Amino acid sequence: MKVRVLGSAAGGGLPQWNCGCRNCLAVRRGDPRIRARTEESVAISTDGERWFVLNAAPEIRAQIESFPPLQPREARHSPIEAIFLTNGDLDHCLGLLSLRESQRLSVYATESVRRGFVDDNVLYRTLERFPGQVTWRALVPDERVALRNADGDDSGLTVLPVAVPGKLPVHLERLHAETPGDNVGLSIRDENTGRTLAYFPGVASATASVKRALADADCVFFDGTFWSNDELVILGLGTKRAVDMAHWPLGGSDGSLRLLAEIPRARRVLIHVNNTNPILYEDSDEARFVRESGVEIAWDGMEFEV
Amino acid sequence: MKVRVLGSAAGGGLPQWNCGCRNCLAVRRGDPRIRARTEESVAISTDGERWFVLNAAPEIRAQIESFPPLQPREARHSPIEAIFLTNGDLDHCLGLLSLRESQRLSVYATESVRRGFVDDNVLYRTLERFPGQVTWRALVPDERVALRNADGDDSGLTVLPVAVPGKLPVHLERLHAETPGDNVGLSIRDENTGRTLAYFPGVASATASVKRALADADCVFFDGTFWSNDELVILGLGTKRAVDMAHWPLGGSDGSLRLLAEIPRARRVLIHVNNTNPILYEDSDEARFVRESGVEIAWDGMEFEV
Repeated sequence: MKVRVLGSAAGGGLPQWNCGCRNCLAVRRGDPRIRARTEESVAISTDGERWFVLNAAPEIRAQIESFPPLQPREARHSPIEAIFLTNGDLDHCLGLLSLRESQRLSVYATESVRRGFVDDNVLYRTLERFPGQVTWRALVPDERVALRNADGDDSGLTVLPVAVPGKLPVHLERLHAETPGDNVGLSIRDENTGRTLAYFPGVASATASVKRALADADCVFFDGTFWSNDELVILGLGTKRAVDMAHWPLGGSDGSLRLLAEIPRARRVLIHVNNTNPILYEDSDEARFVRESGVEIAWDGMEFEV
Repeated sequence: MKVRVLGSAAGGGLPQWNCGCRNCLAVRRGDPRIRARTEESVAISTDGERWFVLNAAPEIRAQIESFPPLQPREARHSPIEAIFLTNGDLDHCLGLLSLRESQRLSVYATESVRRGFVDDNVLYRTLERFPGQVTWRALVPDERVALRNADGDDSGLTVLPVAVPGKLPVHLERLHAETPGDNVGLSIRDENTGRTLAYFPGVASATASVKRALADADCVFFDGTFWSNDELVILGLGTKRAVDMAHWPLGGSDGSLRLLAEIPRARRVLIHVNNTNPILYEDSDEARFVRESGVEIAWDGMEFEV
């Protein structure tokens, strides 16, 4: 399975438009020890021709232009067979609205994520210009399904959605009831090679199902949003703690790096990293600690085989 | 008045994500005679410190990072005093949803454009995280208003909104009733210098008010979407003609370049140029014809004083 990181940052990207934290300033002054990053998205393919995109970031147009295999091969065409949404956050969904121009799309999402984007959203009508412009394919936690290409053929990949502790997107808070399908991780298996990618960009805490999915994987993308629980508070940039935003911090004695240490067999990659996270600065103690733990930090353009 | 073009393309940008037309292919192969372009947006300022942004393109984050004066000068800050919307098209509005992170915004728009974005749009709740997060300031056709900075102070600029023949955004078709405020041009005057910028990125045809605004201007940004009425049809890329999309083609005996020839005193710049338009290829006959007419073609990063 070929893997290409299209975007590696949490919502807002790096730099974030209204942020002057040390990381954002370092990117803007061209410091070589830190890379600019767009919002999280990963493309996968078994043959290099047909691609599945995990999450639709607001800058998806630029992400497609950064990676020639995702570009059209005819006058009107896209090699993107389907898009997955792991939750309804805007940094995961807004890019769908940039994939208009009357192109057919297939989108895999749980029913609650689909409804969160489609209901009461007049902007979505831009993707309803003709019947069947978007084909929604249902993800149901704990039910493994065969992934279909845009033409309906079997892709050779299967996916097991895993319910993950999390929260509703900010814009749906106090509006929708919470359900187990609001946040999922994806365990994607190449049925020809048996190799498995676990994609878990947002994890508030580990359940038995999450642990099982990680243990089974050859490669894990994991929530790298925050280093510490009070990261934004200490920097004077906010009042919310990591746990208030349903992100499990990496560091400390109860941090998620401890969990990742339990699965040394898998290639482990942190993604959805917030602009404030010190691991983004290559010379930081925190970045060094991550590297010494055998864990990688995703960057835009990172590419490998699973 | 300082002017910086942040984005110069019509909806979809150049290259467009699902398009393999000759222009899109030329950009992707690195042909030096054509430039990549993001979707249309222009920043203006009288002092170089406080900026007004005309239209909020989907790639506004990258546009801000391309121009240091728009970047924050404190831990949480933006030098963007206000944003203008000339209509409700997604390429003009979607960027608002990337300006979240609890930052206060001021947005100037007509009542119909405001309603088209705010009503029945659950995503907009991301900009309603606290009371007063967005201040909407009303534009009324034919009523000149003083522009306020974010803190409410007078900016020294005034704007006269001019109703422009057009159409509703695709996603509001058959849903909203058409009103004269659906599409406006902006005549922006620096009251200290008397210099005037006319910003007309979408024009289906010229009315007396449009002609008057152009005649009064020192600089005109004008709708450069299509060269010919049947551009998409001839290229096999669509069935709609330019007029069906409320864009007046540039070329031919009844093209908009004829109108621009009547205002030779003003600096005239074409913007909102569609990816298929042959003027984007610098060696084309059409690009040469535009240049020989004394008209410029906007590009991302173009900067000048009015």
